[in-house]
Amino acid sequence: MKIALIGAGNVGWHLAKTLDATQHQVTAVYSRTAATREALAQQLNHALPIDNLNLTLYNIDVVLLAVSDAALAEVTQELAVRAGTIVCHTSGSQPLTVLQPIQGARTGVFYPLQTFTKSKPVNLTHTPFLLEAADEETLGELQQLAAALSDTVLPISSSARKQLHLAAVFACNFTNHLLGISRELLEMANLPPDLLQPLIQETVDKALQRHPFLVQTGPAIRRDQNVLQAHLGMLQQYPQHQELYRQLTQSIQAQLSAESKSKTP
Amino acid sequence: MKIALIGAGNVGWHLAKTLDATQHQVTAVYSRTAATREALAQQLNHALPIDNLNLTLYNIDVVLLAVSDAALAEVTQELAVRAGTIVCHTSGSQPLTVLQPIQGARTGVFYPLQTFTKSKPVNLTHTPFLLEAADEETLGELQQLAAALSDTVLPISSSARKQLHLAAVFACNFTNHLLGISRELLEMANLPPDLLQPLIQETVDKALQRHPFLVQTGPAIRRDQNVLQAHLGMLQQYPQHQELYRQLTQSIQAQLSAESKSKTP
Repeated sequence: MKIALIGAGNVGWHLAKTLDATQHQVTAVYSRTAATREALAQQLNHALPIDNLNLTLYNIDVVLLAVSDAALAEVTQELAVRAGTIVCHTSGSQPLTVLQPIQGARTGVFYPLQTFTKSKPVNLTHTPFLLEAADEETLGELQQLAAALSDTVLPISSSARKQLHLAAVFACNFTNHLLGISRELLEMANLPPDLLQPLIQETVDKALQRHPFLVQTGPAIRRDQNVLQAHLGMLQQYPQHQELYRQLTQSIQAQLSAESKSKTP
Repeated sequence: MKIALIGAGNVGWHLAKTLDATQHQVTAVYSRTAATREALAQQLNHALPIDNLNLTLYNIDVVLLAVSDAALAEVTQELAVRAGTIVCHTSGSQPLTVLQPIQGARTGVFYPLQTFTKSKPVNLTHTPFLLEAADEETLGELQQLAAALSDTVLPISSSARKQLHLAAVFACNFTNHLLGISRELLEMANLPPDLLQPLIQETVDKALQRHPFLVQTGPAIRRDQNVLQAHLGMLQQYPQHQELYRQLTQSIQAQLSAESKSKTP
């Protein structure tokens, strides 16, 4: 298939590069910023950097919109495609219906459940691609496209995708922030940042094998008041971290109470 | 060396089993609960389950106290050892001096920076062992013991160890709790829990390669109000999760502001 990539941010960048390495072809890349679209086009085999959203000039099978949720409404207004072209967005939180304004398009969602940063290569082989389409034929074509990238391709409704995206914010964005705080705490104590690596890896290995609530460890779940108070004291200079510590401790303890209650007959 | 393990909880259990597989010998295991000490002794090659803390009867080189911080004071009161025996605690947050009441002992700290759950085997080969001792000779002997378990053995002060433990609570205990919430959210949406696995693995890989604050993604750092409000709405029924979502979002945004300020000349 011939693909146009609209948006050259973290998601668009990696989708374009990964698609370009398959039997499919990225033939056009659009970004508002000339330097960005040219930088991405240079990374690809046959892609033209384009500076407007009238795609009726080109022979394109699938248009992938990899723009921020905020920009999506504007892009769907401006975009023009030949009748029958598939147009997908790649957002976890936007419904399929947001694409309705695009005249003549067959609409779909092409959502890779992954975290993307331009500077870090990512292997999408096991990344789930969650698909949705307005009709069965379009869904079939999207499945074919996604299967070229990943071994995990699933149809999913707009509402389930929203739930999944919320879960991903906890598992990825919030987890990353906590890892950042822990690294900052190490740096402030002049300790090497890789000291926590085996612990972090084991934490995640365990959480992927068992339900995390069943393998929770640490002072919060032990209700070890001495340690909890000492830690809050050490965070006195960092009120934001201190408040997070308090909230997360409460949340762990509330979870524990809820579980023991549910075990009581 | 001949080792006595005091405490058969998550930490004692794994330390005893791992030490028993080296050239060293776990000769005695103590736990207040008969069934627990007997269960652990049965897992070991030559260990006697013992029911009191008078160890002067036995030929022991090193006593490892793997009990909760709360129980540590009581155990140090009751424990009796032959003069010159090394006695270590295994706590991240207790100072070395907590062992001073033990008559005739050479004292130290033997802290494995890892998360332990009895039911899950753990490979300690790369787990950092953080050591402290009242004298150089004792430190040398502890280094020898730790080197039989791990390739990462470091001396560290009581105060640095406390900082490290605090960082570990963020990186491990709090991260595990967030992974638990994300799994719960998947279950409530009837989605398979392993769907998030590639995302979680990539999040951690990335955070171990780059400073997590520099690779933060998601609606909080994009200040995507529509998505943030939608997510808070979806958590309406779960006020504790909703409050955590709010706090973590604020913390990510505060971090971003702090960074841009530090870049302004």
